[in-house]
Amino acid sequence: MKKIVIFGVGLIGGSVALALKKAGDHAQIVGVGRTGASLQHALDLGVIDHATNNIAEALKNADIILIAAPVAQTPVILNAIKPHLDKTTVITDAGSTKSDVLNCARTILSEQFSQFVGGHPIAGAEKSGAAAAMHDLYFNKSVVLTPTTDTNPEALSQVRTLWEKCGAQVSQMTAETHDGIFAAVSHLPHLLAFALVDDIAARPNAEQLFSFAASGFRDFTRIAGSHPEMWRDITLANKTALLKEITAFENELSQLKQLLNNEDGEGLQALFERASKARNQWAKTKLQ
Amino acid sequence: MKKIVIFGVGLIGGSVALALKKAGDHAQIVGVGRTGASLQHALDLGVIDHATNNIAEALKNADIILIAAPVAQTPVILNAIKPHLDKTTVITDAGSTKSDVLNCARTILSEQFSQFVGGHPIAGAEKSGAAAAMHDLYFNKSVVLTPTTDTNPEALSQVRTLWEKCGAQVSQMTAETHDGIFAAVSHLPHLLAFALVDDIAARPNAEQLFSFAASGFRDFTRIAGSHPEMWRDITLANKTALLKEITAFENELSQLKQLLNNEDGEGLQALFERASKARNQWAKTKLQ
Repeated sequence: MKKIVIFGVGLIGGSVALALKKAGDHAQIVGVGRTGASLQHALDLGVIDHATNNIAEALKNADIILIAAPVAQTPVILNAIKPHLDKTTVITDAGSTKSDVLNCARTILSEQFSQFVGGHPIAGAEKSGAAAAMHDLYFNKSVVLTPTTDTNPEALSQVRTLWEKCGAQVSQMTAETHDGIFAAVSHLPHLLAFALVDDIAARPNAEQLFSFAASGFRDFTRIAGSHPEMWRDITLANKTALLKEITAFENELSQLKQLLNNEDGEGLQALFERASKARNQWAKTKLQ
Repeated sequence: MKKIVIFGVGLIGGSVALALKKAGDHAQIVGVGRTGASLQHALDLGVIDHATNNIAEALKNADIILIAAPVAQTPVILNAIKPHLDKTTVITDAGSTKSDVLNCARTILSEQFSQFVGGHPIAGAEKSGAAAAMHDLYFNKSVVLTPTTDTNPEALSQVRTLWEKCGAQVSQMTAETHDGIFAAVSHLPHLLAFALVDDIAARPNAEQLFSFAASGFRDFTRIAGSHPEMWRDITLANKTALLKEITAFENELSQLKQLLNNEDGEGLQALFERASKARNQWAKTKLQ
């Protein structure tokens, strides 16, 4: 790899750049961004080697293009790069949902869709921006790639190598499987946390309620402090899988309500025991 | 105060004992417990001054009795102390729900119910037992007392002083208000976390789902690792308020589902913004 072009040099894109440098990779790292200031900042910090807003110049002889901008930008960026795209340049992304990205890439890239590999690094941090980028953000973290039957195996292999250089554990699955998994373990919990806080905040005695909320509430609702625009995009993009998850959760909640209504202590304890055992088992085996 | 009797010298009761000693209070601290071994352990650690299973001896000249055993023990303990209860001894407890405790105390203590003050310290830790007790567990933490019109003001005042010596911020409200508040900010979040983990753990692809769960899931589900028996007791004891909360949450979730079904991006973003703003505001103002 001689040249990688990163659209959006924030936490996600910047951390890839730093990880490549740390790994001793000599590829030139070119940053492309919407705002000149943040691009200049990434350049000043030494996160990228070169900054430009000239797409034709950026893409010339590029081996890989990584789209790490807010997801709503993905179609805009794909449309912008399409006229300048070499036949051998590989494109990948870092979005939290994959079916929508693949559909969009298929439409826009058309006959060059085989060069696109959908990707999702399961890593993040509280802070954002190039200044927050870390060379070890992806170390031992999962990255999911979602190739299709149209994906060029060589393109897939290059993206896999890119993430492995960052220290990530790469797995592959269909976009549909990916979106189903993350609807369950990430998008639904976010919705539930948003819903709980919104429900409480709207009440006349909200201030009193919040004043007695303690550490359990703090951890449960941490993800309700997440970025509203980003989560609007994620929930809309993963609508189908998420609606299925909401329905499954409604059924589970209704079952719990029934147990409580019937004062079924045995049933409640059995449910809490299954959950508690599974949660503590997960916490033990999961490297975090 | 010359003598305090603590039923259940674990994290909660033990920390009261240590806080009193730290505050320079010279009251004799007598521990009463179900198992001789844990009582001896509390004695060896210097948490209590004297250990006994002889209720008559323990209660003789006692100023305050603190019931800090698992909540299911509360009626058992009240029945055991009633025959030996002086007219001036004050009784208080540390249970997470209050209406049920007051009802039970009213029935069992009968004409001596005026000596009882319901209490709930909003503090805890991961570990349990006398060895986990800390002199500063209650420092700057809330303690809610729930007197009734029958409560002796002198008894209330003594319990308030007890908790203030532990460094706690004491507030008063009716048991009903207390139970409504904690159904919303504590018991419902616990139920939701238990429900989510149970829902996921029951699926054929549970292992795969858990393997991609990350830090958001970790924090959201931390309280699903809580003690099943304790939460069976709390949810049953606070059934009425909790059922109301579940219904309110179902309505909120149904509203969210509607927004998603309609692909109402503005509506979703507005809801997420309200929640995110309220959550981050709460985190800023809350001393933790």
